[in-house]
Amino acid sequence: MQTNGYLCTRHLKSVSCMGAFFVLHMLPIQVRSCVDFLNDIVQILLVYNICIIIFIDVIVQMEVDIIPKVIVTEEQWIQKGIEQFAQSGADGLVIEKMSADLGCSKSSFYWYFKNRHEFITRLVQRWAELSTNQVIQTSSVHEKPEDQITDLLTQMFSATRKGDFLFYLRKASKDSPAFHTILETIEQARMKYAEELFTKAGMNPEAAAHKSTLLYHYYLGWYERSKYEPVGEEEVNRHIDMLWVQLLGFKGGVR
Amino acid sequence: MQTNGYLCTRHLKSVSCMGAFFVLHMLPIQVRSCVDFLNDIVQILLVYNICIIIFIDVIVQMEVDIIPKVIVTEEQWIQKGIEQFAQSGADGLVIEKMSADLGCSKSSFYWYFKNRHEFITRLVQRWAELSTNQVIQTSSVHEKPEDQITDLLTQMFSATRKGDFLFYLRKASKDSPAFHTILETIEQARMKYAEELFTKAGMNPEAAAHKSTLLYHYYLGWYERSKYEPVGEEEVNRHIDMLWVQLLGFKGGVR
Repeated sequence: MQTNGYLCTRHLKSVSCMGAFFVLHMLPIQVRSCVDFLNDIVQILLVYNICIIIFIDVIVQMEVDIIPKVIVTEEQWIQKGIEQFAQSGADGLVIEKMSADLGCSKSSFYWYFKNRHEFITRLVQRWAELSTNQVIQTSSVHEKPEDQITDLLTQMFSATRKGDFLFYLRKASKDSPAFHTILETIEQARMKYAEELFTKAGMNPEAAAHKSTLLYHYYLGWYERSKYEPVGEEEVNRHIDMLWVQLLGFKGGVR
Repeated sequence: MQTNGYLCTRHLKSVSCMGAFFVLHMLPIQVRSCVDFLNDIVQILLVYNICIIIFIDVIVQMEVDIIPKVIVTEEQWIQKGIEQFAQSGADGLVIEKMSADLGCSKSSFYWYFKNRHEFITRLVQRWAELSTNQVIQTSSVHEKPEDQITDLLTQMFSATRKGDFLFYLRKASKDSPAFHTILETIEQARMKYAEELFTKAGMNPEAAAHKSTLLYHYYLGWYERSKYEPVGEEEVNRHIDMLWVQLLGFKGGVR
């Protein structure tokens, strides 16, 4: 059975200290009366103990497998939660199972999160950062709005096999106004960003709003139908060319 | 506890026959020796028995609640299956729970279906008939392809709150080539039909194929985002006008 690496290290340190104390007190009285000899013994034991402690610390720092080091970080918990949520939704977030997968104790979960609700909220926020904010930031580095649009589309239509996060978030939001608000904020941000890009690219505001809505819903349906298959670069490019012409209405493409 | 009506009727018939037989043999010997009297008794009992049988049959046919009639039909099982599958997929098709909901015994299920796989196959076929074939047939009655398109769009974008049948069918098809084939057939038929209509309405074949793909995936995404909300007639009409202009590219609409 795996144990927490930090606790394991402390345990070994205590054992070695206790060992030194024990040996010292078990010495025969005639030897104990010999102060010089005793001093030597104490010093040898202290040096031995310090060596053990240094040895253990080196092993821990080198992440050698002799002592299993399974200090699970908050980010690891959140990533595990995102992965699990995308597989089977809120019902799939069984703390016992996740801690077994991560190789740590259940108490590790409660070190970072008050309860399941806080955990779900945090993982949804992290997922929004990864799936929305980062996509927006990455495509924003281009100068021309057309290049920003192409970058956005490439990011949208390259990613498959990421599970059903959005589906399960929508399911959870049905009975939770808090999750509903988070979901609505994410989706509105996505559509608003595309709308702004379309307007910058010269589309009239009304059309830009409609095209952005069309694009986002199309993306949801496309993801649903493509989620189990990997998608190649060439296919993505053909797909984006088609969207430029047939959905956005730039005859002949702009690339 | 409710019992199967048909079995209940048969049970009562048997009891009344047995009653007649029992009374006949319990008569004193001196009376039995009197052949005429015996004949009368037998006839009376036969008439009484026939009356009982007719009475029960009349009650059963009138569907009077005195005898609980819970003869579950194949169609009822399939409708229950469709409803349950749309809620929680193949895992939700627990025969014991469904038979309890329908108020019949589990044996009723095995009267109609060999096993769960046959049941799922049958309910998927029925769902395909209801959700695809009937939609195509209904919209085909119009003469003009534009009217057929509008009818198709109206049917597509009016229906919400029908659960997640397609989502769970896709999930089941991941590990089942048979379900994958069924799903692919349904979705190709849907897209092919729209493509034909667009071509008939004057679109070039390549554009028609792309627009049909766009429309179908857009519909999947739209359904996902709208599935929990009812949708009013006016909203549907506005939506369809937007699709005519922004997706199909008929500036100014055709209605």
